[in-house]
Amino acid sequence: MNYLTLAGGVGGAKLALGLSRILPPSDLTVVVNTGDDEEFHGLHVSPDVDTVMYTLAGLSNPETGWGIRGETFNALERLKAYGADNWFNLGDKDLATHIRRTHLLLQGESLSAATDSLRRSLGVAHPIVPMSDDPVRTMLTTTIGELPMQTWFVKHRCEPAVSSIRFAGAAQAQPSPSFMQALRDCDTLVFCPSNPFVSVAPILAVPGVRDAIERFDGVRIAVSPIVGGQAIKGPAAKMMGELGIESSCVGVAKQYLELCDIFVLDDVDADRAPDIESLGMRAAVTNTMMLTDEDKVRLAEYICGLAA
Amino acid sequence: MNYLTLAGGVGGAKLALGLSRILPPSDLTVVVNTGDDEEFHGLHVSPDVDTVMYTLAGLSNPETGWGIRGETFNALERLKAYGADNWFNLGDKDLATHIRRTHLLLQGESLSAATDSLRRSLGVAHPIVPMSDDPVRTMLTTTIGELPMQTWFVKHRCEPAVSSIRFAGAAQAQPSPSFMQALRDCDTLVFCPSNPFVSVAPILAVPGVRDAIERFDGVRIAVSPIVGGQAIKGPAAKMMGELGIESSCVGVAKQYLELCDIFVLDDVDADRAPDIESLGMRAAVTNTMMLTDEDKVRLAEYICGLAA
Repeated sequence: MNYLTLAGGVGGAKLALGLSRILPPSDLTVVVNTGDDEEFHGLHVSPDVDTVMYTLAGLSNPETGWGIRGETFNALERLKAYGADNWFNLGDKDLATHIRRTHLLLQGESLSAATDSLRRSLGVAHPIVPMSDDPVRTMLTTTIGELPMQTWFVKHRCEPAVSSIRFAGAAQAQPSPSFMQALRDCDTLVFCPSNPFVSVAPILAVPGVRDAIERFDGVRIAVSPIVGGQAIKGPAAKMMGELGIESSCVGVAKQYLELCDIFVLDDVDADRAPDIESLGMRAAVTNTMMLTDEDKVRLAEYICGLAA
Repeated sequence: MNYLTLAGGVGGAKLALGLSRILPPSDLTVVVNTGDDEEFHGLHVSPDVDTVMYTLAGLSNPETGWGIRGETFNALERLKAYGADNWFNLGDKDLATHIRRTHLLLQGESLSAATDSLRRSLGVAHPIVPMSDDPVRTMLTTTIGELPMQTWFVKHRCEPAVSSIRFAGAAQAQPSPSFMQALRDCDTLVFCPSNPFVSVAPILAVPGVRDAIERFDGVRIAVSPIVGGQAIKGPAAKMMGELGIESSCVGVAKQYLELCDIFVLDDVDADRAPDIESLGMRAAVTNTMMLTDEDKVRLAEYICGLAA
């Protein structure tokens, strides 16, 4: 079986790690949201790509889920002294990633090629593919105005209520060539337990992607990031409430109508299985919590079992 | 009195520090060589400007003369892992300077404006002015081919013999506006004890500068970087030998014909005073060694005494 998984940040990275432990590099492609990408200090930062990359490289900070373990922040402290914004935490090791990526882009490489170079250097065997090589920016309309994703997420700590979301640049973007290739080659598509609105929706907003997934020949499996009405991490549940969407696994499943064959929900939500089935998906109930690496592998094995 | 001093790296920074301790900011402008500027990892690095700036800010590493005290090198280590060149030592704090400078340049600021912003943020009260806002690159013809200054100086540790030097871009460059303004406003010009060939010559190569200094109304004082036939720091003596120039204070003075009124040489070279005088300059003999901050202030006071 050949797997393509769509991932955002921390939740996506966890399942991607589980899958990478049981699938050879030739059988797994991780496509990552770049709607969160942002320029800081003139450097191109790809928060979700880096979270997935650092996680698969075994470098990620287990306390935060993002960033690199054992970081120092000497450059950022000095950037602050120079009058630069410092609300986005960039460690010294992490900065090297952004410096290198920006330099490769400046030299004419695509974001896909730059990402491939970085992940190989970090010893990550599995392909990590940005959804697009073109700029797409997730913009949130909030009570204090329209904000780019990271400004809302980090600077404003998800506090301003969100009324709508758009993906600036998406209409002009193309899916990255490796993404399209993987969509053609794979027989199982996995929606990671990532935020459907700001992690998965940007990927679906790239022209051609939604169509390709609707017409997908193989098995399409989604994992709910909402368990017992709460997001495991991040603002998904709060955002769903603000958007007037039921904050539950069913509310998530409704985002994947026509896109998903099997919807994986947590044991605690087992009573919602009939609601999921009524949406035309098969409901698969298991323990979806990924606290340890063993949990990640177990969930990955469960998903591969569903696909088989 | 109003002073303009021309500086390269470490030697220039030492005298600039001495002068800055006894002159108010309104009476001293430090113009710095940018022929060493180089792009590393897509970032604009100005080695001499930074050495002067860090020295005046009290941040410089006393062991090396360049770089910042108490540095860490976490970003550079990772850049190396990413396959980037790492022969040019860039600490994490130092990187912040280059990131910020590059970002300001990218936003359309001139190198002068970016430098001014950086030095003010570091609490440096005295103006530090790049010789030009345009790119000038010191290129050395050596036994292993033509090399940019930092490649020769750092990567090849000054080893390949130098047969000639050119300043690429100089003919198209203009002196920075603050440099020209200071040339008009000041009444004393000081050539720091910097390498005449790769620190001062690039400044003189910028169109209009040599003329303006030849026609300069006030007192022009040069301090020899060669003491007892040896460079106090750096490759000046070795380079002079390779270029067929006498490696002595007299050899230095000959580089400043028509440009200098008073030539300061060290006590150990007192016997060469007549040779200096025969070049049409007044010879001033003193202890020019700047091992401590007191030494730097003493030499600065001596120079101000000559100017008065």
